[in-house]
Parts: sequence; structure tokens; C-alpha cells
Amino acid sequence: MSKTQKEYQKLHVLSKHARILQGISSHLDWDQETYMPFGSAAIRAEQLKTMAGLIHREKTSQKFANTLSKLIDLSSGELIAQDLTPAQSSAVKEWRRDYLQDTAMPAEFVEEFAQLTSQSVLAWRNAKKSNSFQQFAPFLDRVVTMNRKKADLLGYQNHPYDALLDLYEPDMTTAKTKQIFDKLKNTITVWIRKISTQKIENNFLFGKWDHDKQIAFSHQILNAMGYDFNKGRLDFSSHPFSSASHPTDSRITTRIHPSSLMSSISVILHEGGHALYEMGLPQNLYGTPLGDACSLGIHESQSRWWETRIGLHKSFWKHFFPILKNTFPGRLDQVHLNSFYQAINKVEPSFIRVEADEMTYPLHVIIRFELEKALIEGSINVREVPEAWNAKMKEYLGITPSHHNEGCLQDIHWSMGAFGYFPTYTLGNLYAAHLFEAFAKQYPDWEQRISTGELNFVKAWLSEHIYQHGRRYSSRELLKLATGHAFNANAYIRYLQDKYSQIYQL
Amino acid sequence: MSKTQKEYQKLHVLSKHARILQGISSHLDWDQETYMPFGSAAIRAEQLKTMAGLIHREKTSQKFANTLSKLIDLSSGELIAQDLTPAQSSAVKEWRRDYLQDTAMPAEFVEEFAQLTSQSVLAWRNAKKSNSFQQFAPFLDRVVTMNRKKADLLGYQNHPYDALLDLYEPDMTTAKTKQIFDKLKNTITVWIRKISTQKIENNFLFGKWDHDKQIAFSHQILNAMGYDFNKGRLDFSSHPFSSASHPTDSRITTRIHPSSLMSSISVILHEGGHALYEMGLPQNLYGTPLGDACSLGIHESQSRWWETRIGLHKSFWKHFFPILKNTFPGRLDQVHLNSFYQAINKVEPSFIRVEADEMTYPLHVIIRFELEKALIEGSINVREVPEAWNAKMKEYLGITPSHHNEGCLQDIHWSMGAFGYFPTYTLGNLYAAHLFEAFAKQYPDWEQRISTGELNFVKAWLSEHIYQHGRRYSSRELLKLATGHAFNANAYIRYLQDKYSQIYQL
Repeated sequence: MSKTQKEYQKLHVLSKHARILQGISSHLDWDQETYMPFGSAAIRAEQLKTMAGLIHREKTSQKFANTLSKLIDLSSGELIAQDLTPAQSSAVKEWRRDYLQDTAMPAEFVEEFAQLTSQSVLAWRNAKKSNSFQQFAPFLDRVVTMNRKKADLLGYQNHPYDALLDLYEPDMTTAKTKQIFDKLKNTITVWIRKISTQKIENNFLFGKWDHDKQIAFSHQILNAMGYDFNKGRLDFSSHPFSSASHPTDSRITTRIHPSSLMSSISVILHEGGHALYEMGLPQNLYGTPLGDACSLGIHESQSRWWETRIGLHKSFWKHFFPILKNTFPGRLDQVHLNSFYQAINKVEPSFIRVEADEMTYPLHVIIRFELEKALIEGSINVREVPEAWNAKMKEYLGITPSHHNEGCLQDIHWSMGAFGYFPTYTLGNLYAAHLFEAFAKQYPDWEQRISTGELNFVKAWLSEHIYQHGRRYSSRELLKLATGHAFNANAYIRYLQDKYSQIYQL
Repeated sequence: MSKTQKEYQKLHVLSKHARILQGISSHLDWDQETYMPFGSAAIRAEQLKTMAGLIHREKTSQKFANTLSKLIDLSSGELIAQDLTPAQSSAVKEWRRDYLQDTAMPAEFVEEFAQLTSQSVLAWRNAKKSNSFQQFAPFLDRVVTMNRKKADLLGYQNHPYDALLDLYEPDMTTAKTKQIFDKLKNTITVWIRKISTQKIENNFLFGKWDHDKQIAFSHQILNAMGYDFNKGRLDFSSHPFSSASHPTDSRITTRIHPSSLMSSISVILHEGGHALYEMGLPQNLYGTPLGDACSLGIHESQSRWWETRIGLHKSFWKHFFPILKNTFPGRLDQVHLNSFYQAINKVEPSFIRVEADEMTYPLHVIIRFELEKALIEGSINVREVPEAWNAKMKEYLGITPSHHNEGCLQDIHWSMGAFGYFPTYTLGNLYAAHLFEAFAKQYPDWEQRISTGELNFVKAWLSEHIYQHGRRYSSRELLKLATGHAFNANAYIRYLQDKYSQIYQL
């Protein structure tokens, strides 16, 4: 083995050690949301803090830095080693990227940030309960200040928000996001105004839906998707999530809504999509960046792919609607597939992001993006948030929240300090649309195939074009490699237009 | 704060860090036996190995040793600090004990041992499946050799087995154990021969017992015991266990036997007893030895206390038998309390240790003790084990296993390398009997109180005399402190004689 290969292997061993600890930490999070007894919360918090400290220590150790420096110049980013494979070169660059990010913030800053956000999450929960933005405002104020400082520590060229966005979606800039989102907003708001006068019946989706039958149906969908229950499981939590401890342990959760039929079905397809990605990452590269997912935006493209592109498509329900009818005998006998399809795709402005339909969803994200960008650049201050929120809701969606808990207090993200995260939700939709055009081109008969209940070829396509590459390519590169074209944000608008002009008069 | 107190606090912080990691490791074990998908086993093994390495590193760090050395002389064991409280002095002595044990074995030895036992557990499983001792023998041979080496590394005065026993039951020696066990064996074997001709009817305990009802009844017992579901939970696993991640997270598992009514009830009382101990340890001392349990023998005394002293006593069933009847309507209507009591206390020699009744159980343990002692001292070799096992079964219990998997291949312990562990099972019974005499003296009306379903005073007594002390005292000291008398192994024989001479003609 060459000297370079030896150093690379050494790096892999060090990095895998940290990755294993991260997997343990994810597992502790999973347990906290599913089975942990309530009274264990305090020591669980200490366990998580301890793990975070160990992981940070390993990822920023002198030993790691020394080994990495033998392969790449840490300051310039130029490769030193000449005999790395192209994949290894990508890995080394990503290791450097992570290392610089992990060491950009001094330990005291990281600890202060962690302490503040752990307090502000509590404050947010209480503020939401008592519907009082005032209670949360002083914490949000400090979170914004620390995020500005974080941006300074991480460094940026044009806009401080660039540095934060880069944590979740490398390659993306504030300006580029704004440009994409503006166009999307202008297009969708016009459609929504037109749709607002057109009515679709969806009452039959509500009522009382048996818990166990909902679960049984969920399992059928997951099995059809190719979710491997030998490497995962389905449990319940108040906020659904997918937990990626490692490629052979990718569990998901759902919540069973007793009176809304589509609630858990959407969750299953969404979290199942995240989990398939994790299960499909290359196991032999576990512990290198090549064994990790590409970006949050790409991750979200996978969940939204299954939730919206497959799970809200008529061909999917050609197969599954009869099964759904059998699962709930007598309940949907009078409902025709077309009516069902229209009902599950009903567009209607609403207050809560996580319950929004496919068309209004991006507007919820855009409001948050605009506000957090404004907070970071200082063009508005925290006290102005509620008013600005409501004004944007009125302007984009035509509705005004009556309480802050269905307005600017609804999401946990800001209290967690996660500025820069929200845009990835909508970027995920845009990426999925871009990818889907290539998929549909390769499989012109995809609708027909899906209508027979066959989904394996879908997973296989994603596996070949997304999963297997891990973090080898940036999201921009990956999208191009998978489709042959540079990322095009218009694919999403095209998709919405094609789909919804068949349901509504746009 | 004095200099001594500062050093003590520093030691507490270092030690708590390692203790938190141990709690995480226990949690991973719990998950592995309950919810983990099968396909995650390989990476879970890596996670556990990684945690074990980190824990060992922290417990043997130079920093820890240096701090400890300021309070106690590591070689002589003499306290250096003058202003420690008595409790702190105990803690410091225990810290030294742990440190010497953890550093006695070089890292390479620990790793080799871990690797061997992980292979030999697999070999044991396969050997058990194919009922072939030959398959397991070469592994057991190496396990014995390494245990001898382990004893040498740990050091001992009289017998190499002393060093191994000391890992699980400090204060106890091979000679003392042999003396106690010989007397027990001679007494019990005589009784068993007498009992063998007397018949008790217990057929009504078998048949088909509804799964959910068994669980509901289990919850009632746990609630009555004072098991805090806010700090624990009940799940299912193929081998029941209690998992002590930390005092606020003490979960237990059971297995629901579809056709044996008493199977899960015994497990619940047993594991519940372990869990109450863990939940009752002083939380403010968590991370010091004072926050840990005293010894495996004392731990077993707590589980056997609830399983046998309470759960096999007639007064307990005065309250719970009517509830059991209500839980399974029509099933036990014809059974009188006395018949039920006799049935659940039926003595009958059998092959499997974990299914043995209260009287024959110690003989199973004694056989294992005698054999592992002989293997360690070299008075028999591995190939002679099956024959020696069967001969002892015949001599003590009057029966001969027809297959090795119901004979010398039944237990996992040897394959795990845990020589010295088995005696603690019976020592637990002996300790419980010693303690119970003091308890009964303090509460002469205990039977009457228990017969009303009140068990709080039982837990309160154990809390005061056992739980709250953690590892402050050795098991010998603790037994004396709790009862006012030096440990007396005869209490157990007295108990068995009193109880079983009312059921049988002894």
C-alpha cells in the first residue's frame, strides 16, 4: 500500500470512530422521541452533551488534522497527494471542509450556543403554549445575535446568511436562493388567487380512521417502496422523523391522526423516502464523507419525491386506492379514484407549514427565508417579526393567523438556532422536480408501471443516481450528473403548472 | 472549598463522565435486545466496542490516576487526605479498587479477551443449536486459559478463582463459598430425595394464557411494588433482563410464555426487584461509587427477595390471587388459594437452571461453581465437562440430561468468559434470607400487611437498608449494618426448612 493510501486509511479509521459516535448520538435522539421514560430527560440531556463533546473532540483532534494535512493543504485546499482516486480526492476535500467548519467556532462559542439554544427551545415551548411572542422574543434576539456571530466566524463573501445556508446546503447562496424563491412566489401567488374561487370536495378524507388499520396500510406502502425492515423499523412520536444512525439502522416514526386519513400516509412516504436514501448509502465507505448524504436539500428531494411525486400521483393510487378501500371496508365505496385524487391534491391556504398542500407549501418556506435573512442582515428586528409574518401571510396566502402559535411561533427551528435550514425544504422540491424529468425520460412508461404497484424501478433509479454517490459530489454536480443538465429551478414550476392545470383552472 | 474537596469534586466529574458513557452503553445493550433491527447487529457491535474503549480510556486515564493519587496512596491503599467524610473515604477506596482492577489487565489482553469471547458466544450458540459440545470445547478451552491468565493478572492469595469471584462479589473467597455451598448442598439433596415421592398438582398453571392479560397483570404487580414507570418501562426480549442505564432510566423486559402462567410473573418480580434497587440508588451521588449498586450478590438478593420471598409467599397471593382470577375469568374458579400456593411452590428436579424451583435452584448453581473452580485450578479439563456435569446432576438432582443443550451447554456465561459470576445467584438468595429475618423482626405483622396488597413498606425498608447506601459498604458490612448481625448463611436453610416443611414432609 502506498504512503498516500496508508494515510487515507488512517483518516478513514479516525473518521469512522467519530461517525460511530454520531450514530450512537442519533440513536439516543431516536429513543428520546419514542420510548424513553419522561423522567430520564435530564440525564439523557447529559448523555447527548457528553457525546457531542466527544464527537467534536475527535473531529477536531490534532491527530486528525495532521493526517489530513498530509493529503491536502488545509489553508489553500490544494491536494498534496498525487495518487488518490477521484472518489478519494472528493472525500479528502469534504473532510477538509468539515474540519474547517468544526474548527471555525471556538469551543466556548459552541458551548454558549448550545446552552442558549437549549434554554430558548424551552422558552419557545412555553411561549407557544401561552401564545406569547413576548416571552420568546428576548431568546430569539440572542439567537439572532449569536447566529450573526456564527456567520462571522464561519466567514462569507457577500452576505452573512451565505455562511449559515452553507452549513445545510453547500453550493447555494442567499442571492441565488432569493432569485429562485422570488420567481416561485410570483408564480404561485397568482395561481392561488385563481384557485381560491374553485371548490374541491375532500370531506370523505376525514372522520374516524382505525389506528391499527392505518398502521397496516403504512406497512404495505413501506414494503412496496422497498423499505428494508431488517435495517429499520416504524414507531410513533409526536413529531415524525427519520433517524439515520447508520446505513443498517435507519428507523422512521409517524403519528397516527385519528381523524385524518392522509396524515400518516404522507408522513410514511416522506420519512420512508429519507430512510431509503440512508439505507442506500455505500456501506463500504461508511465513516468517510462518501458514505454520508449529499446535503439537506438533496435529502429533502428524496422525501418529497416519494411524498408528492409518487404519493400524490394518480398512477400510485390506481394500485393503492383499491387496497385502501379494502383496508377500510365500506368507508370509501362511493368515492371514485378521480375524486380521491383531486381531494388529496386540494389546494387551500392554511396557517401551519407542516400541514400545507403541495402548492402553498413553498410560500410558507419563503416567508421564513425572507424573515431570517432580514433578521441576520439587520433590516428588521426581532420585535417586528410577528407583524412582518402576518403581513407576508396576508400578501402571499391571503390569510392572517389569529394567534402567534399558528403564526410565527409554530416552528422549533429558530429556537434551536437553525438559521439557514428552512430553504432546504423548498430546494428539495425543486431538486426532485429537476431529477424527475430525467427519470420520466428514462422510463416513459413510468405511470403505467407504478399503477401496477411496482416501485422497485423507482428506488433503483434513485439508488443509481443519488444514493450510491453519498457526498462524493456537491448537490449541483450530483443534479447535473443524474440528469445531464445543470440544475434548472423551472422544472418545479413546470411540474406544478402541468399537474394543477388539470385539477384547477390556473 | 478545601483542597481535598476540590480534588474530590474533580474526581467526581471525571468519574461521572465515564459513568454517563457506561449508561449509554447499557442503553445500546437494551436496544439490541428489544427493538434493534436484526440487520444492525454488526454496526451495533462496533458501537459497543467503541464505547467500551472510550470507557476504559477514561477510567484508566493519567488525569484520573493523578487526581486519585492526591487522595489515596494507590499502592498501599492508605488515605492521604485527612478531611474526607466517611462516605467520601469509602468512595475513594472503591475508586482505587476499580482503578487497580481496570489497569491490572493490559489493553492487548482486554482486547484479546473481548475478541475471543465474542467468537466463543457465537460458537456456543451454534453448538447449542446442534447439540454438540465438541464444537464448543476448543473455545471453552481458550476461555479457561485466558481466565487463568486473568486471575494471575488480577492477583490472588489462595486460589486463582478468588480473583475471578472478586470481580463480581468482593469480600467473598473460594473457600468460604465452597464451605457455604457444601452445607447447602448436603441439606437440600436430602430434602429433595424425600420430596421426590410426594406429589403436588399444578396442571392448572398451564394451558393457554392470553398475552395482553398477562401484561396487564404484570403492570399491576409492578405498580404495587412501587416501580416508577416515569423512570422505566416494560418491554419484551427473548432473555428477560433489567437494564440500569442510570437511576432515572431503569427499564426491564419480560417474555410472555403463552402456556405457563407463572413464567412472566416470576420474571416481573425478579427484574422489578433489580430495577427498584437501581431506581433507589442515591441520585446526587451518581458518578461516584456511592451511586452504584453494592455487588452482584446484593443485587441478586433484591431480585430474589421480590421473586421468592414476596412473590412465592401466601400472603402476597391473598391479595393478588383474586385479581389474577378476575384477570382470567373462569380459568381458576375451582382453584383454592392453598392449592395455588402449593402449585407455585412445587419442588421438582429439572434440567434448566432458569426454570428451576426455589429449592432445586441452588444445586444448579453449585454444579456450575464446582465445575468452573475445577477448570480454573486444572483439576479437570474441558473435555471432561459433559461427563462431570451429568454425574453431578445425577448425584445432586437425581436426573440425567439426555442432550448437552439441556446440560452443560444451556448457559451463555462461560462463552462470555464470565467465570466467577454463577455463585452470586445463590449468594443472592442467602443474603436475602439474612436480610429478611431483620425485616420480619421489624415488621412482625408483615404477612398481614402484604395480604392487603400493601407493599410500600417493603420497598421503604429495602430503600433504607440497601438502596440508599450504594457501594458505600462492602456486601458483608452492608448485611451487618442492615440486620445488626454478621452474615449468616444458615438463615436460608432455616427459611427453606420452615417453608417447605409446611408444604412437604421433609
